[in-house]
Amino acid sequence: MNEKEKNTKSRGKAASAAPAQKRYYRRKSQPAAEKAAEVTAADAPAPRTRHTKENKKTPVRIIPLGGLNEIGKNMTVFECSNDMFILDCGLAFPDADMPGVDIVIPDFTYVERNRDKLRGVVITHGHEDHIGGLAYLLKKVNVPVYATRLTIGLIEGKLREQGLYGKVTLNVVEPKKTVKMGCMAVEFIKVNHSIPDSVGMAIHTPAGVIVHTGDFKVDYSPIDEKIIDLARFGELGNKGVLALMADSTNAERPGYTHSERAVGASFDNLFKKGEGKRIIIATFSSNIHRVQQIINCAVRYGRKVAIFGRSMVNVINTAIELGYLDVPDGVIIDIEMMNRYESERIVLITTGSQGEPMSALTRMAMNDHKKVNITPMDFIIISATPIPGNEKFVTRVVNELMKSGAEVVYEAMYEVHVSGHACQEELKLMLALTKPKFFIPVHGEYKHLKKHAGLAYEMGLPKDNVIIAEIGNVIETDGTKMAVVSQVPSGRVLVDGLGVGDVGSIVLRDRKHLAQDGLIIIVIGIERATNEIVAGPDIISRGFVYVRESEELMDEARLLLSSTLGSCSAAEMREWNTLKGKMRDALSDFIYQKTKRSPMILPIIMET
Amino acid sequence: MNEKEKNTKSRGKAASAAPAQKRYYRRKSQPAAEKAAEVTAADAPAPRTRHTKENKKTPVRIIPLGGLNEIGKNMTVFECSNDMFILDCGLAFPDADMPGVDIVIPDFTYVERNRDKLRGVVITHGHEDHIGGLAYLLKKVNVPVYATRLTIGLIEGKLREQGLYGKVTLNVVEPKKTVKMGCMAVEFIKVNHSIPDSVGMAIHTPAGVIVHTGDFKVDYSPIDEKIIDLARFGELGNKGVLALMADSTNAERPGYTHSERAVGASFDNLFKKGEGKRIIIATFSSNIHRVQQIINCAVRYGRKVAIFGRSMVNVINTAIELGYLDVPDGVIIDIEMMNRYESERIVLITTGSQGEPMSALTRMAMNDHKKVNITPMDFIIISATPIPGNEKFVTRVVNELMKSGAEVVYEAMYEVHVSGHACQEELKLMLALTKPKFFIPVHGEYKHLKKHAGLAYEMGLPKDNVIIAEIGNVIETDGTKMAVVSQVPSGRVLVDGLGVGDVGSIVLRDRKHLAQDGLIIIVIGIERATNEIVAGPDIISRGFVYVRESEELMDEARLLLSSTLGSCSAAEMREWNTLKGKMRDALSDFIYQKTKRSPMILPIIMET
Repeated sequence: MNEKEKNTKSRGKAASAAPAQKRYYRRKSQPAAEKAAEVTAADAPAPRTRHTKENKKTPVRIIPLGGLNEIGKNMTVFECSNDMFILDCGLAFPDADMPGVDIVIPDFTYVERNRDKLRGVVITHGHEDHIGGLAYLLKKVNVPVYATRLTIGLIEGKLREQGLYGKVTLNVVEPKKTVKMGCMAVEFIKVNHSIPDSVGMAIHTPAGVIVHTGDFKVDYSPIDEKIIDLARFGELGNKGVLALMADSTNAERPGYTHSERAVGASFDNLFKKGEGKRIIIATFSSNIHRVQQIINCAVRYGRKVAIFGRSMVNVINTAIELGYLDVPDGVIIDIEMMNRYESERIVLITTGSQGEPMSALTRMAMNDHKKVNITPMDFIIISATPIPGNEKFVTRVVNELMKSGAEVVYEAMYEVHVSGHACQEELKLMLALTKPKFFIPVHGEYKHLKKHAGLAYEMGLPKDNVIIAEIGNVIETDGTKMAVVSQVPSGRVLVDGLGVGDVGSIVLRDRKHLAQDGLIIIVIGIERATNEIVAGPDIISRGFVYVRESEELMDEARLLLSSTLGSCSAAEMREWNTLKGKMRDALSDFIYQKTKRSPMILPIIMET
Repeated sequence: MNEKEKNTKSRGKAASAAPAQKRYYRRKSQPAAEKAAEVTAADAPAPRTRHTKENKKTPVRIIPLGGLNEIGKNMTVFECSNDMFILDCGLAFPDADMPGVDIVIPDFTYVERNRDKLRGVVITHGHEDHIGGLAYLLKKVNVPVYATRLTIGLIEGKLREQGLYGKVTLNVVEPKKTVKMGCMAVEFIKVNHSIPDSVGMAIHTPAGVIVHTGDFKVDYSPIDEKIIDLARFGELGNKGVLALMADSTNAERPGYTHSERAVGASFDNLFKKGEGKRIIIATFSSNIHRVQQIINCAVRYGRKVAIFGRSMVNVINTAIELGYLDVPDGVIIDIEMMNRYESERIVLITTGSQGEPMSALTRMAMNDHKKVNITPMDFIIISATPIPGNEKFVTRVVNELMKSGAEVVYEAMYEVHVSGHACQEELKLMLALTKPKFFIPVHGEYKHLKKHAGLAYEMGLPKDNVIIAEIGNVIETDGTKMAVVSQVPSGRVLVDGLGVGDVGSIVLRDRKHLAQDGLIIIVIGIERATNEIVAGPDIISRGFVYVRESEELMDEARLLLSSTLGSCSAAEMREWNTLKGKMRDALSDFIYQKTKRSPMILPIIMET
């Protein structure tokens, strides 16, 4: 009889499961990966448990704190007995209804409250929506971070920016290796995605194996020749996977996502088409395989490569240092050296594929770039599709580039971009390989999760075994059942400048109100002793109307306020809140009637 | 020799061309269309002019005031001798960088300056981007309006809203009929589009025939069985078209736009799929053929139809009144009567297909609709594609509807929407039929115009004969040459509430600044006689930080301001602008250093 069977489902007693793990996960001594202290072999035997109803095991809790019903800020907590670890810690970009906000990160309250249990953070890959919140987390709880080599390289850059470099233990873990997290162990499994060194995770827990795909696609001809480790997913599936958590980004799309290599073939054609012109290619800085293909084309067609945009320069430097980019000597040239070459012998690689206002490509388009002037001798490729919300930015950049006479390739007619996420046939493949007992679609808005769940139903998974969860849900499983049992604090924390969390709903509401119709300030001065008005009412407005053309309106408003104040009793003059309310109401009604606008009205009483 | 040949190219002498038109356009007495006073037959003979370089005619000026390098606010002025008319007068919807703005209309300055020449307005169809600016124009210049019957019906509704009904002469013109505009004449030509009764125009001028397609597509099986009058476009082409101005909206898309009837076939399948459930279909209110197909399905499947959303109710009522919708008695039911029917016997037609925040469908999705509660027994079809910029709104609505358990059909996999605009093959067909000497792509952003121009080049039009214009350009042609010769005032006028044009760049800049980082107000009271500070400095903020959690920061700011004021000389205390500047600079530096934010800082000095 398995020791774990002694444990009851009760969370109170779950702590006793920890010692059992020492037998469960066989430790192997092996050549440690760089800095990787607690890495063990992946081929630890799977637990041989009989799946009977009585076979209850130490319960495991899965707590998504981001990435469900939203795009971005992916973060999941895994908890078992007295141990806890975090998988990914990303950021999200603010919506239009969050003016002034720079980034959005998950709410770390639950993690902070349980800091004693926290054994570390594992990261699936180096995209912002998986690592962008990490520095903020590590400022609160300093725990070791485990990730593949390139991912660690990119994290290092972020920690440097936040003054955390050297203060955090970063551990490089190779795919197929396993990291112990107390009574749990996390095995890294190679996947394909739009950034190299992406992994999924098999989380070995007392209750069973939970597979988390991270972001993935299936690429049979990846640029780094490392195909997703489908065999290992299959092996795990055959041994028994308790739950699968899989990327739902493209769950709406039928078929397969094309290989990254398809983009290389397009580039080859376009380099021929752009012969005699300078070629400019905008893409995501993190898509190092895309950059590799551009460099390969450049070499093939005898062009030099210049790199534009801060993040592009940073990522390419990191990738070259760590050996993820293969660049023959002399191919990449300094921007300052560009003028030494004829422009038809040059390729520029740049950021700005999303039309971001401050990016290099946007500045080129707006004739605002110091080094690059767009002319009809430019052949420009935007190697990306607009992320929802960015369509108008991209269109504006395309229009402006075209107005300068450049040829711009941006549409689907040339395959200049492929997705990094699995489409429906790949998602089904993952379900078929892992054969999970339970399924939790992750990484997507509700419509994506729902579609993904639909695929699982079609493949025969019972509806009760599919959980469409929300962030903050505590999903508990004892290896037999799985259910949402409670809720922990979760949500979005807004980062604005140096402030983390000091912009909340009231501040946002005010910002939106101010943006809609502007502001009118009423100022009066009241003599403390007599309660007499000694100054004002004065009116100042911003963002409301063009004042010089609305003097009459403002004069009328002042008169109205004077008469409102005149009609106040002595008692009312002492009650400043009442007085403010009366002024606000009178002015608000007047302004709405005259203009059908509702500016924020801010009465200020100065006591002299 | 033609009389027109006597006229020189000089604009000064062009006025003399007017009498010539009496012979040029043969008047026919014929049964007048409703209210159509100045309508003549379309089969007036085309001018038989020899196309020689010497054959100069009275010049015609084409002045686009909207719709080029932008989506929306379509408006073009045609001018010849002492006559001028306007083709379309639409609105545009504000971009994200115009907070608080309701709609955007063209700048009418040029038209107002030339009001004496203005003979009328012709309208191609009843969409907002072609009629939405009309009421604002007519308030400035009251001239007759000419349009087809449904379009006039929709314009009437808009004039009623603006208190103009009965004050403007509205003339119904049937396709194939011609309206005289002084020395020019405008012939209405039936086209297909996503609203019935759409027309293109052949503008017969002394310089030659200018064809303007309006918005169009080619539908060989339209719901109203009225196929675009390709034959007339061909006839004009064979007789000689001086210039073509054609809809560029879909110039990026290869192939043909599908027939509206394809949507009907999809609806039929989906009604079968939705059997046993309530069906809710969201679409554009103006797409009356779409509504007709929904009603046809409802009749076929024995369902009653209830209409939701103010604009949907208005348009459907107008369409029924004017005979554009064929609804058997008893099919449409009042919303209040819905409860008398089982929900699987009902179809709701609603606005909100773009996820507009206040629309009926959005309110249903957010559980905020008084009459409709979404449940798993709802089958919802969003029969539209998101207009660029609306993607996130639509996604939010889809997510929320799905969370209520409803089935939602919104993707391309079911053909629940077809475009109303011509794709590349149709655009080429129009070019081939009209065989224009000159081509001006219209109705689109620069990238669309450019693509459309590219199609014309491919078909052999010389590059010099294609003009990619900008709004405000004066394009002049004498029948031989065509060029941009000058510029008139043009741009965007913002409408916010009742204010037309009182929100300009300064107000917008302030609104955006306020939205980004909020506002800090500094108030001090100064005694006039002594120049002493008798109150403050006080600090009030809105939209900056959550004040209760930032008391320390605010206290420090107050201290800083006190010391700044303390260091001011007596002279500086008298110079209030200097004083304000000093306070603003000191606080701005302090706040940026502490928070990396730049709120608007507004110093107010009260004189007591």
